[in-house]
Amino acid sequence: MNIRIGYGIDYHRLEAGRDLWIGGIKVPHSKGSIGHSDADVLLHAICDALLGALALGDIGTHFPDTDAAYKDIDSKILLSKTFELIQTEGYTIVNVDASLCLQEPKIKPYIAEMQQVIAGLLNLGVKDVSIKATTTELMGFVGREEGLTAHAVVLLQKITDQI
Amino acid sequence: MNIRIGYGIDYHRLEAGRDLWIGGIKVPHSKGSIGHSDADVLLHAICDALLGALALGDIGTHFPDTDAAYKDIDSKILLSKTFELIQTEGYTIVNVDASLCLQEPKIKPYIAEMQQVIAGLLNLGVKDVSIKATTTELMGFVGREEGLTAHAVVLLQKITDQI
Amino acid sequence: MNIRIGYGIDYHRLEAGRDLWIGGIKVPHSKGSIGHSDADVLLHAICDALLGALALGDIGTHFPDTDAAYKDIDSKILLSKTFELIQTEGYTIVNVDASLCLQEPKIKPYIAEMQQVIAGLLNLGVKDVSIKATTTELMGFVGREEGLTAHAVVLLQKITDQI
Ligand SMILES: [Zn+2]
Ligand SMILES: [Zn+2]
Ligand SMILES: [Zn+2]
Repeated sequence: MNIRIGYGIDYHRLEAGRDLWIGGIKVPHSKGSIGHSDADVLLHAICDALLGALALGDIGTHFPDTDAAYKDIDSKILLSKTFELIQTEGYTIVNVDASLCLQEPKIKPYIAEMQQVIAGLLNLGVKDVSIKATTTELMGFVGREEGLTAHAVVLLQKITDQI
Repeated sequence: MNIRIGYGIDYHRLEAGRDLWIGGIKVPHSKGSIGHSDADVLLHAICDALLGALALGDIGTHFPDTDAAYKDIDSKILLSKTFELIQTEGYTIVNVDASLCLQEPKIKPYIAEMQQVIAGLLNLGVKDVSIKATTTELMGFVGREEGLTAHAVVLLQKITDQI
Repeated sequence: MNIRIGYGIDYHRLEAGRDLWIGGIKVPHSKGSIGHSDADVLLHAICDALLGALALGDIGTHFPDTDAAYKDIDSKILLSKTFELIQTEGYTIVNVDASLCLQEPKIKPYIAEMQQVIAGLLNLGVKDVSIKATTTELMGFVGREEGLTAHAVVLLQKITDQI
């Protein structure tokens, strides 16, 4: 069997006066994500799903938040580096399905652009990159706008299977 | 590769005096889910997983909570409509695995009926529809019975692959 | 189609003076998980993902916490029993990808050993068992160290497909 499944989850705190990077684009909002990198919760969840599918560790092992090289780094670079690791292992991506959980702002207007950015980085069509968004109905730390979370699943296949 | 992976997550608040719809059936309980539709957290997570597998948007884009047509609607109708979208794209479902997180009541007595309802709507056998349930050990908003959540994963295949 | 997808999620409270079993090994820490068994959140999530892929119920139906037989039981035994159920159904595991969410302690030093333990129990190679770990950035009940959670996804295939 030459297909593999991966799942990733990520969490970031929100704070006033920071940029809010989600899915590779800057979303206008009064708060932004805190992190060592640009703190893009959606791209990080996808990175972790890709790494997890091939048991390559996680985003923390490859891009440690103690390494100055990754300070404030654009997470699109991390996703590209992750995709290189996948390709080096001889795999390609079948599809990505990601879910963002945050209370504010509305993400729908930005989803098409996020899909294009991610599809471009992963050599996929936009119909192979799904991004969904939900609030938590004002519950928990996401509902209180203390932070946001993302989940992603991926299906990979061995490149030699493609005919 | 003609298989696809999808993942969905949904959240709803619980409130006294509302019906508790889960997995297409009404579960006797002192509290029920709040939402624009019947607020069936399990069916919504499955809808989102199906839509996500084919990058068709999410339940909010297809059945917006600002549309009066979906006020108090039976989520079984939403799941059927979602399944039609999947079929229109030329896909069928391999299997569904869903997990419900809620503190009360015990869901086990209702799971077989939920499986039958969902399998019927999705043209699957009951062994292709898994429903699991867990508490959060009294932690967080689910533990405080403020709300409930559900996760679902699905595997789809292109219909032309079936022999 | 002879592949199946499964997803599992589990939650346990943390309390001072208990052992902290994660991924089949005892992790040195000031707190441990509470449960009827050894409360290994990672193995439980994997059990649920395996059972869910074949709609075999969940860990609570197979190993009820009201059954004295499972009091303080080593969850490695539960995972082995679950794997037997999968094999009885004629399935084998393609890969497992698990994510642990906890604030403390750092889990990275223990991951290689966890992979070996789980791979041994499931008749897999270590590259087919992924374990990732993240904090919740101090948010929610995980961030307050009240508890920990785990998610796992699995891909199964029918044994007759293997050539
Ligand atoms: Zn992150
Ligand atoms: Zn909903
Ligand atoms: Zn457990």
